Amino acid sequence: MNFNKNFSKLAESYLFAEVARRASAFAFTHPDKKLLNLGIGDVTQPLAPEAVKAVRAAAEEMSVSKTFKGYGPYEGYAFLREAISGYYSSLGVGISPHEIFVSDGAKSDLGNILDIFSVDNTVLIPDPVYPVYADTNVMAGRKIIFADATPQNGFLPMPDDGIKADIIYICSPNNPTGAAYSKEQLAKWVEYANGKGAIILYDAAYEAFVSDDSLARSIFQVEGARTCAIEICSLSKTAGFTGMRCGYTVICGELEREGVSANKLWLRRQSAKFNGTPYIVQRGAAAVFSKEGQRQIKETLGYYKENAKTISGALDEAGIFYTGGRNSPYIWLRCPREYDSWSFFDFLLNEAQVVGTPGAGFGKNGEGFFRLTAFGSAEDTREAALRLKNLF
Amino acid sequence: MNFNKNFSKLAESYLFAEVARRASAFAFTHPDKKLLNLGIGDVTQPLAPEAVKAVRAAAEEMSVSKTFKGYGPYEGYAFLREAISGYYSSLGVGISPHEIFVSDGAKSDLGNILDIFSVDNTVLIPDPVYPVYADTNVMAGRKIIFADATPQNGFLPMPDDGIKADIIYICSPNNPTGAAYSKEQLAKWVEYANGKGAIILYDAAYEAFVSDDSLARSIFQVEGARTCAIEICSLSKTAGFTGMRCGYTVICGELEREGVSANKLWLRRQSAKFNGTPYIVQRGAAAVFSKEGQRQIKETLGYYKENAKTISGALDEAGIFYTGGRNSPYIWLRCPREYDSWSFFDFLLNEAQVVGTPGAGFGKNGEGFFRLTAFGSAEDTREAALRLKNLF
Repeated sequence: MNFNKNFSKLAESYLFAEVARRASAFAFTHPDKKLLNLGIGDVTQPLAPEAVKAVRAAAEEMSVSKTFKGYGPYEGYAFLREAISGYYSSLGVGISPHEIFVSDGAKSDLGNILDIFSVDNTVLIPDPVYPVYADTNVMAGRKIIFADATPQNGFLPMPDDGIKADIIYICSPNNPTGAAYSKEQLAKWVEYANGKGAIILYDAAYEAFVSDDSLARSIFQVEGARTCAIEICSLSKTAGFTGMRCGYTVICGELEREGVSANKLWLRRQSAKFNGTPYIVQRGAAAVFSKEGQRQIKETLGYYKENAKTISGALDEAGIFYTGGRNSPYIWLRCPREYDSWSFFDFLLNEAQVVGTPGAGFGKNGEGFFRLTAFGSAEDTREAALRLKNLF
Repeated sequence: MNFNKNFSKLAESYLFAEVARRASAFAFTHPDKKLLNLGIGDVTQPLAPEAVKAVRAAAEEMSVSKTFKGYGPYEGYAFLREAISGYYSSLGVGISPHEIFVSDGAKSDLGNILDIFSVDNTVLIPDPVYPVYADTNVMAGRKIIFADATPQNGFLPMPDDGIKADIIYICSPNNPTGAAYSKEQLAKWVEYANGKGAIILYDAAYEAFVSDDSLARSIFQVEGARTCAIEICSLSKTAGFTGMRCGYTVICGELEREGVSANKLWLRRQSAKFNGTPYIVQRGAAAVFSKEGQRQIKETLGYYKENAKTISGALDEAGIFYTGGRNSPYIWLRCPREYDSWSFFDFLLNEAQVVGTPGAGFGKNGEGFFRLTAFGSAEDTREAALRLKNLF
C-alpha cells in the first residue's frame, strides 16, 4: 500500500492555521491585551432572520413522518436550484436549474470538481490567490503554472497567447487582492479559453460585493462563457453561511469537449461521492434568495462595506498603498517600512494587536503585501483602524 | 484540456437511478396502483426529538452575533468528536477524539479518503457490495479485484494469502447481503492486512443493527486493527440522518506507513477540500449520542428490526431462500422461479407493486438475488409482506 506521494510536496502548515497559532501564542503570553482579528475571512454577523426561520421550520418538518426528508437529489432540491436560477436572472443571466448543482460549499466544489479532469492537464493559477487552488492540484499531481498579479497589472493578469494552459483559475473579486475584472477583461479570458479549448474555473464567492456595474458579477455575463466556464459560488460571504455550508456550481449544457458533457460528468461524480446538502440547510439557503432574504443580506453586506471604508480611510491617512475594499471585502496593502509580510504580521500583532494575513501565504507575489478583511465587527474594525493610524 | 477518461469506463446509469426510473414509469402508466418501496436504503421514520430540539436551538444561536458560529474545525467540533469517542467507549473501544473526523456522510468520506492513496494501489472489493466502492476507484483509475461473496461462504469472503491487495473494502453488516462478520473472522482480515502492509476501509454504516454479541460493531473491537484499519460510519441509518448528512471517519494514531501518518494526510486533505459539517447538523448529531437521544434512536431501530422480521416471516412462509434481516436492515433473497434479478424486479413491480433492488446492481455475484430493506413504514412493509405471500 502506498500513500499518495504528492502530499509530501505540500507545504506542511496551512496558512490560516499558522496565523491562528501565532495569534494564540501571543494571546497566551499577553492575556491583558485585546486582539482584533482582521485576518481569516470568516464573517461575524448573524444569519439573516429569514434563513433562521426557514431552518427552524425545516427542522420541524424533519420531526414528523409525513414531512420528513431523507436522501435528497445529488444536485440539490429543485426549490433551491430554481431560486438560484432566479438570482441569475436578476443579474441578467439565463441559467437553467439543470445547470446548477447545490453543494456544501465553494471550497468543496473547487477541490472536488478536479475529479472530472485528467491529471495530465496544465493548470494556470493567479499569484497571489486563495491557496487551495494550488494545494488541490499538487495533491493530484497536475503541472501548475502561475499568472503574475502585480501592482503593474493592477493585480489582474490577462491572457498570454504564448502560454498553453488547460484549466484556468479566476477569482474575481480576488482573494486576497480585492481586484475585480471588468466584463471587457473577462471577455478576453473567455476568448482565450474558447480559442485554446481550455476551461475556466471561475470562483465568484465575492460577487455580491461588486457594486460597480462595469465589473462582472458572473462570468456568464460575458458572451461565449457558456462553452468554456464553470462558475463556483457560495453563500458564505454573501449570507453569513460559513458555518452553514452551502454553495453552488454552474455548468452549462454547452460545455462539452469531444461530445462529452461536463455537466453530466459532474453529476456522475457527485452521485458516486456525495449525497446532497442537508435539507434544512437548503431551506435556509432558499430563504436567502427570497425578497425579504435579499433585503436582509443587503443590510449585512452594507455593514461589511462600511467596515471596508473604515479600514481604507485609515490607510489613506497613514499614506499606505492598498487595493480592494471597494468592490470586495478584502483590503490588500503594501507592507510599510519595507517589512516582509510575516515580519509585518508579527509587528502588527506585537505593536497593535491587530491580526491580519501575510501576503506571502497567497503566493510569491504576495510577499511584501498584507491582507485585511472587512468581516470583523464594526466596533473592532474602528478600533483596529484607530490603532493603525496611531502606529503610522 | 482533457476530461478524466476513466469516467467513460463507468456504467452509464447509477443503480438507484435506474430503479427509480422504472418505478416512476410504472406509476405513470398505472396511477391507480399503490407502489410499496422496499428498494432504496432510505429511512422513513422522523428525526429523533432530541436531534430536532438541538437543531432548533442551534439555529437560534446562529441568529445572534454573540452565539453565531462561522467556520468550524475541519475535523468537526470537539463536542461531537467527544460524544462519538464516548459512544466507542460504550462498545468497549478506546478511540481518542483526535482520531475522529466528522463529515457530511459516510458516502463522501468513502469517496474522498481515496485522495490520500496512490493511484497504483490494487483494491480488493467484495462482490456483491455497495456500488460506489468500485465506481470511485474506477474514476481514479485504480486496479480492482473482487472477493466473491456467495452462498458457499455465507456471503462473507475470507482473506486469501495468494492475493496481493493494498486497499481492502469491508462492509459489515454488508450492503446488500446483510451478512455480518464475527470478531474472529475480522481478526483474520486484520492479520492479513498487517502482514501485507495493506489498509482496510471498514464501512460500519449498519453497525447499530447488530444485536448478536459475537458479531463486530467496530473493527477496532479486534486487536491489531489500529495499525491497519480506517473505519467509516454514519448517522444515516442509525439516527435517520439520510437528509441531515453527518458521518465520521476514525483513523488511529498508529496507522502509519514509512513514517507517514494516515490521520495527518486525511486532515491535510480535508483542510484543502472541505470546510466542515454545518454547525446545526453537528449539534443535532451530538444530541443523538446523549442518553435520551440513544433511547429514542433505539426505539426507531426496534421499529425497523420489526419490519425485517415481517419480511423474513413472509419469505419463510413462501419458502424463499434469504440471508440478513437479523443483524442488518437488509434482506437478501434468491429470486424464485430462476428469475434473473432485473426480471424479478419487473415481475415484482408489475405483479405486486413492490419495489426492491436487483442484486445484479451490486456486482456479478448479485445476479439471481434481490435486496429488500426494512426501512419502510410498518404499514407498507406489512402490506408488501402480504402481497409477497399471496404471490408465491
